[in-house]
Amino acid sequence: MAEDSSNSSSNQMWGGRFAAGPAAIMEEINASIGFDKKLYAQDIEGSIAHATMLAANGIISETDRDQIITGLKQIRQEIESGAFEFSRKLEDIHMNVESRLATLIGAAAGRLHTARSRNDQVALDFRLWVKAELKKTEAMLTALIGAFLDKAEKHADTVMPGFTHLQTAQPVTFGHHCMAYVEMFGRDRSRVRDAIERLDESPIGAAALAGTPYPIDRHMTAAALGFREPTRNSIDTVSDRDFALEFLSIAAICAVHLSRFAEEIVIWTTPQFGFVRLSDAFSTGSSIMPQKKNPDAAELVRAKTGRINGSLIALLTVMKGLPLAYSKDMQEDKEQVFDAAENLELAIAAMTGMVADMTVNVDNMKKAAGSGYSTATDLADWLVRELGLPFREAHHVTGRVVALAEKNACDLSALPLDQLQAIHPGITDKVYDVVTVEASVASRKSYGGTAPDRVREQIAAWRNRL
Amino acid sequence: MAEDSSNSSSNQMWGGRFAAGPAAIMEEINASIGFDKKLYAQDIEGSIAHATMLAANGIISETDRDQIITGLKQIRQEIESGAFEFSRKLEDIHMNVESRLATLIGAAAGRLHTARSRNDQVALDFRLWVKAELKKTEAMLTALIGAFLDKAEKHADTVMPGFTHLQTAQPVTFGHHCMAYVEMFGRDRSRVRDAIERLDESPIGAAALAGTPYPIDRHMTAAALGFREPTRNSIDTVSDRDFALEFLSIAAICAVHLSRFAEEIVIWTTPQFGFVRLSDAFSTGSSIMPQKKNPDAAELVRAKTGRINGSLIALLTVMKGLPLAYSKDMQEDKEQVFDAAENLELAIAAMTGMVADMTVNVDNMKKAAGSGYSTATDLADWLVRELGLPFREAHHVTGRVVALAEKNACDLSALPLDQLQAIHPGITDKVYDVVTVEASVASRKSYGGTAPDRVREQIAAWRNRL
Amino acid sequence: MAEDSSNSSSNQMWGGRFAAGPAAIMEEINASIGFDKKLYAQDIEGSIAHATMLAANGIISETDRDQIITGLKQIRQEIESGAFEFSRKLEDIHMNVESRLATLIGAAAGRLHTARSRNDQVALDFRLWVKAELKKTEAMLTALIGAFLDKAEKHADTVMPGFTHLQTAQPVTFGHHCMAYVEMFGRDRSRVRDAIERLDESPIGAAALAGTPYPIDRHMTAAALGFREPTRNSIDTVSDRDFALEFLSIAAICAVHLSRFAEEIVIWTTPQFGFVRLSDAFSTGSSIMPQKKNPDAAELVRAKTGRINGSLIALLTVMKGLPLAYSKDMQEDKEQVFDAAENLELAIAAMTGMVADMTVNVDNMKKAAGSGYSTATDLADWLVRELGLPFREAHHVTGRVVALAEKNACDLSALPLDQLQAIHPGITDKVYDVVTVEASVASRKSYGGTAPDRVREQIAAWRNRL
Amino acid sequence: MAEDSSNSSSNQMWGGRFAAGPAAIMEEINASIGFDKKLYAQDIEGSIAHATMLAANGIISETDRDQIITGLKQIRQEIESGAFEFSRKLEDIHMNVESRLATLIGAAAGRLHTARSRNDQVALDFRLWVKAELKKTEAMLTALIGAFLDKAEKHADTVMPGFTHLQTAQPVTFGHHCMAYVEMFGRDRSRVRDAIERLDESPIGAAALAGTPYPIDRHMTAAALGFREPTRNSIDTVSDRDFALEFLSIAAICAVHLSRFAEEIVIWTTPQFGFVRLSDAFSTGSSIMPQKKNPDAAELVRAKTGRINGSLIALLTVMKGLPLAYSKDMQEDKEQVFDAAENLELAIAAMTGMVADMTVNVDNMKKAAGSGYSTATDLADWLVRELGLPFREAHHVTGRVVALAEKNACDLSALPLDQLQAIHPGITDKVYDVVTVEASVASRKSYGGTAPDRVREQIAAWRNRL
Repeated sequence: MAEDSSNSSSNQMWGGRFAAGPAAIMEEINASIGFDKKLYAQDIEGSIAHATMLAANGIISETDRDQIITGLKQIRQEIESGAFEFSRKLEDIHMNVESRLATLIGAAAGRLHTARSRNDQVALDFRLWVKAELKKTEAMLTALIGAFLDKAEKHADTVMPGFTHLQTAQPVTFGHHCMAYVEMFGRDRSRVRDAIERLDESPIGAAALAGTPYPIDRHMTAAALGFREPTRNSIDTVSDRDFALEFLSIAAICAVHLSRFAEEIVIWTTPQFGFVRLSDAFSTGSSIMPQKKNPDAAELVRAKTGRINGSLIALLTVMKGLPLAYSKDMQEDKEQVFDAAENLELAIAAMTGMVADMTVNVDNMKKAAGSGYSTATDLADWLVRELGLPFREAHHVTGRVVALAEKNACDLSALPLDQLQAIHPGITDKVYDVVTVEASVASRKSYGGTAPDRVREQIAAWRNRL
Repeated sequence: MAEDSSNSSSNQMWGGRFAAGPAAIMEEINASIGFDKKLYAQDIEGSIAHATMLAANGIISETDRDQIITGLKQIRQEIESGAFEFSRKLEDIHMNVESRLATLIGAAAGRLHTARSRNDQVALDFRLWVKAELKKTEAMLTALIGAFLDKAEKHADTVMPGFTHLQTAQPVTFGHHCMAYVEMFGRDRSRVRDAIERLDESPIGAAALAGTPYPIDRHMTAAALGFREPTRNSIDTVSDRDFALEFLSIAAICAVHLSRFAEEIVIWTTPQFGFVRLSDAFSTGSSIMPQKKNPDAAELVRAKTGRINGSLIALLTVMKGLPLAYSKDMQEDKEQVFDAAENLELAIAAMTGMVADMTVNVDNMKKAAGSGYSTATDLADWLVRELGLPFREAHHVTGRVVALAEKNACDLSALPLDQLQAIHPGITDKVYDVVTVEASVASRKSYGGTAPDRVREQIAAWRNRL
Repeated sequence: MAEDSSNSSSNQMWGGRFAAGPAAIMEEINASIGFDKKLYAQDIEGSIAHATMLAANGIISETDRDQIITGLKQIRQEIESGAFEFSRKLEDIHMNVESRLATLIGAAAGRLHTARSRNDQVALDFRLWVKAELKKTEAMLTALIGAFLDKAEKHADTVMPGFTHLQTAQPVTFGHHCMAYVEMFGRDRSRVRDAIERLDESPIGAAALAGTPYPIDRHMTAAALGFREPTRNSIDTVSDRDFALEFLSIAAICAVHLSRFAEEIVIWTTPQFGFVRLSDAFSTGSSIMPQKKNPDAAELVRAKTGRINGSLIALLTVMKGLPLAYSKDMQEDKEQVFDAAENLELAIAAMTGMVADMTVNVDNMKKAAGSGYSTATDLADWLVRELGLPFREAHHVTGRVVALAEKNACDLSALPLDQLQAIHPGITDKVYDVVTVEASVASRKSYGGTAPDRVREQIAAWRNRL
Repeated sequence: MAEDSSNSSSNQMWGGRFAAGPAAIMEEINASIGFDKKLYAQDIEGSIAHATMLAANGIISETDRDQIITGLKQIRQEIESGAFEFSRKLEDIHMNVESRLATLIGAAAGRLHTARSRNDQVALDFRLWVKAELKKTEAMLTALIGAFLDKAEKHADTVMPGFTHLQTAQPVTFGHHCMAYVEMFGRDRSRVRDAIERLDESPIGAAALAGTPYPIDRHMTAAALGFREPTRNSIDTVSDRDFALEFLSIAAICAVHLSRFAEEIVIWTTPQFGFVRLSDAFSTGSSIMPQKKNPDAAELVRAKTGRINGSLIALLTVMKGLPLAYSKDMQEDKEQVFDAAENLELAIAAMTGMVADMTVNVDNMKKAAGSGYSTATDLADWLVRELGLPFREAHHVTGRVVALAEKNACDLSALPLDQLQAIHPGITDKVYDVVTVEASVASRKSYGGTAPDRVREQIAAWRNRL
């Protein structure tokens, strides 16, 4: 039935980089060594654990085991020293290592592959990598939280506008604002920890998809590789990429958090706002306009959201509707995770640096906090609380006071008492205790509120959780 | 500076549904009552808890509290009986309830809003809703796992082809295949539980964004509403939609799992495969071709992945780069979550039904399992293990055996012993113990392997976790 | 092999809204009448064209045709008057109409379905709907472009800061800025027109998927329904949803454009920027803080990007890997398109309204334009051009001038000539012609530049393209 | 206000690859040379055109121009020979080239940058690249269409099952099925052409964002670079990435088409279907199971949908809500487009190869086409048409005939006439003319139908459009 085949003529079709025809295309689409060499350490670590277990259970000899381990360690050194020559013909990291091992130690190399398959091997390597990356992310989030805690502590009393709709709403402290990010990155870290717990199962020993007749000890390899326990179903083990999807979901939500503070930095560093100033390290300047500092790092952090959303959608799409067990489609998993991981790390590091190094313009923040009659609700609350006015009347009085301040072009706290009393005779000079931004902030002592004491309590509590 | 305004002329611009001009557009884009009325029960529950706390702390009177609670209960009854008239002019569920309460009880209604704002109110309502939905999802996943466990138990010995690349690889049991899905939905359920734990903090009392000067007791409302504790930062509280994003991430991964079995159902119900047959309830037929049964429900379940991916991306995009605290963009959160929740529920229910009701064609599965010389690796392993052949030679012998079977157009187990011995004289009739699909399956006793005993152990273990 | 079936027991599993068991679930997941009734007009229009063609080609009688058309027109009237009762048991709009037609006219109703199937019928209805929606979008984009042109004309001379990185870079005019959006929405409109051209092929007559043995005239129905020609391949015709994907892609890009101006509005309406003021119609206020205006409409427009990205990803995901021809998955196409269309319309209308009604604070814009030594590059260019300084030296001189202005805390144009000459003796008072923001703007006369004359040329050219 | 800065202590925070502190992080997040060096040819081409124009308009001297062009050509040669050393300190391709040019030709190098900026330069380079990529895509789609046309021609008479819901519906020809893909890729190509037309405007001369005071001739550079005309608004020019978004949208839809045939290949190459066989070049085998051929290339093509959806979402997310004009976020545009382009090319090439080289199992296709009583509708139609039976009765008779065939376990065409006449006496032996799959296929002569003559007409028409 070869009549359909038309290799010879079809070769012309591609031209350019595919001039060599089907073989060249297939090698290019099929080979993964270009990116999965990143897994070399995991691959070798897994093989050592596997060989050790095989020997312990009499499946291979101790001599074979020793040769295998010596050979693998040499390969690891070759790779780390740059001496190893990766071959695309050998497709992936597993075959590159295996082939080199055969050259180094001969027949024993073949016995390493007893009772396992590339399917569980790649599942192991990738899972080890993702687990390590999650631990790295956890540590980086802790550093970022630390940077915000430092800033929060220094600015527990620094008053700034609390925004809704990017309009001034009520005064808050910059420390309190920083602590909002501590909560966000704290949740991210908690998601990371849950993910580590969930993926902490060893895939090795699932073999191609059905398990193996060899008397292997999967609990032994699991323990050797630092996993809590082995996975429970061999088909699921080679079909599953949940740990990658979960990593990407967590990364996407974390990137959203990063993008929110990045956006605030971009807005706050405009001349119009002038709330903060980035260090030179995290901004770019202009030789002509010395005062110009572009918040490049913040913009790039903000943009990373897109990239990570993209990786998440990419892998969700790849996995959609794949029949069990392993399908080659799943080879597309690694680049998405590697790229998201690298960029998330970079974004967290850049944000940690920006937060640590930024300088705060306390005066500009305070001035802005007072604008827009941001303490009008404090006044209304005072009228209700102290004078016993019904809400509706309190609001009416407040409206008239604000109108007066607008006419005078001054803040509420700058209105003379007699003018206030002309609006409502019950007003006393105690009102000045609530209409300054400092008083407003100090008064919000409800649990989780912006009162500096409350903020300091939370800082202390978070320091204990670091 | 009103010279720019051109209301009068601009009205003509829209025509059609926007003929009424800016006011109509604004009402349409701004009002959320069309979807957030779904939160009525949470809104009323939250208000009752808030009023109770206010009275307990002397912020409102007990009389006010009683009036408020009576009024709210009546409103709940009106909504549930269909008597309540929702108004789009009143924008959202909170204002609809508040306005009705004012009509019912007068001035006391106004005092309910003391020490809270729409920002923490909507955060509370939505969080309560998502928490309840997560609990429902947890229960539905448990039911789905149960359906797979039942199927796995009945088919712990039913041999089918284990596929890689949708090509027959090695025999497995259908019970083992079902248990792969138990693992997947088990992970989904575990993610759901982590999410419930993480969101279990009460937002109420964060007020507009800064907390409140009133002496409220947030731990009391948290307890009354079934939350573990109150949130710790008021700005974060009104800015945070992590719980919605996490719900959507979990839903997206779960939908991928559903789509995988849905795809298998679509393929397995073709005449070419004929592995399973859906019940009439979950397929559609044809009056002319009585044997035709379209797997509509499976196709629709598969398609839901798209919808839920869409909702996840929608909310991730909305939240990207939003400055703190509340921005109106966040109003777009609810429809995405509601839609994803409704469709995930539906997909889980349909899958549970399909699994429970499907019939398995044991003969077709077994026949397919034997095709493609799926036990060739068992033969090779036997040659290594029993005859002590080196791997390379064992593979060579196996290759010749397979070629012989191909020529004879029969399975490996149907080859006569003398012909096998002609290929390698060491082969004995013990080889027949490994080249049948049943033997192959039974031999894979490694932990997590497809051997029926192993599968039954896992079924038992999962029953204990239900 | 019904032994697997367990309908009775499984019913308990669902509870709640699925208590009625499989039938209820299937009806809920399968029925599309809830959303596809939106296609009633297209369905009836298509049926009238089909019946007319069948009669013209002797496939049905003229009497049948007349009865059919009369019946269909009555059904249309019933639907539009609200008298029609949609039934979920009848699943979709096609069966609802067909069933009612049978009631109205009896046997002839059955003959309407000759030489067509639900597959080409739904393809027709949906394509007609999308085509009409694209035409509506085209008109709405034209109105939006018109609003920007009006604003650009009024503000062709209004100087504002041109931003890069949201930092002041060089002065531009607000008219020029508006014209950037004219270009964007002009490209959107051009994409809409290409899409209309591409989808302008009639699907009706493709039948189930293979065409039909009846002597139908597809060119006749195509013409009657306003299509350029019939589609060329019956399998593709019932499998294709490109027109929906293309609509969603276009909508997503357009939504990005809308989100960019929405973001600018949010930033520009802060007290810190104060560049524009939204009309009351498109903002919400506060009873206590009279000056507060939240840019709700802009925020909601910005958020719509998320929703439309979501719809695009949803349908791309649904269509991934679907074998030909029709699969039930494709039923998920409509809600995504309907939702994206409705929200895109709303966002365009809201943006058109905001643009038309907004007031510009010319003074604030101008003041900001001069800040940050935005004309420093004009000075450097002048030194090169007029004094023949090498670039490097010109930049050096400019740097010293800017440093001087910084020290004096004034604009470049406010520096006295003698101080300038102290830096470089060649500087003359002609330099003041280039360092004001007006001069800077006026000088940028390159094609596409911000010089008011250039902007006015483009406004005129676009008016001709409306 | 440097009191906040804490460079020294923060250095410890990062560890690992960020040990070097802020500078290392900033270089890593900021530098684009790692990927934008891909634009070297466009960068040099653009600079030559710009220098030529500057000289032609007296802005630089002819000597400068000549030196610049000679220098640039040498740099191009250095890059292409591998001699050029890219520096990450110099951030991007523009600065790398510019810096090398300064070394080579001295002061004249600085004058090249007159009347342009990196903002319009990068817009130019990237647009030239995307335009060239679109042209390449157009050619590759033409080759793919050609491969399908060849296959369609060879199999214009090869009968296969036409599927709906992956269940046999009606017989079609494989040629007709191939032509469905010709239509899809034809639409993709048409979208590519529209995109080329739309982006065919030259950005150079927009300068930083406002245009330039130099008397440049943008029409001259546009013509020299092969653009139809210059862009019309300088702010839009440096803010716009529509051409990249449109490329990604087109790629995403095209990837969906590729994934659909890839899925069919995966299903059709199972032993259960056995419709086609991939050439060895595009599948991978197994040393043990000689008959096993994994459709790796098809699976990888299918998976590319995910990747390209990801890139599309990534850039849509990046561009959401960016204020004009240039923001650094936009630097994230290139990697997405480069990756999508490379993978789309690869997927098209692999699919072209698979289609050209695949062999069709005509017997299996035909046999499957006859299964499932796929011609039952033909029988019903015949009863209506020839015997004048009302629809309902025709369907009833057909149902009984199918039931009989089911009982006899034979095809409709194998039922003896007397048994048919026992069901309905009017049936004659002419019925055998319609119930074979060949007859069914031949009868569907409606425009766009599967009748071989119709298919051949379409093949001829498409050959003319190549």
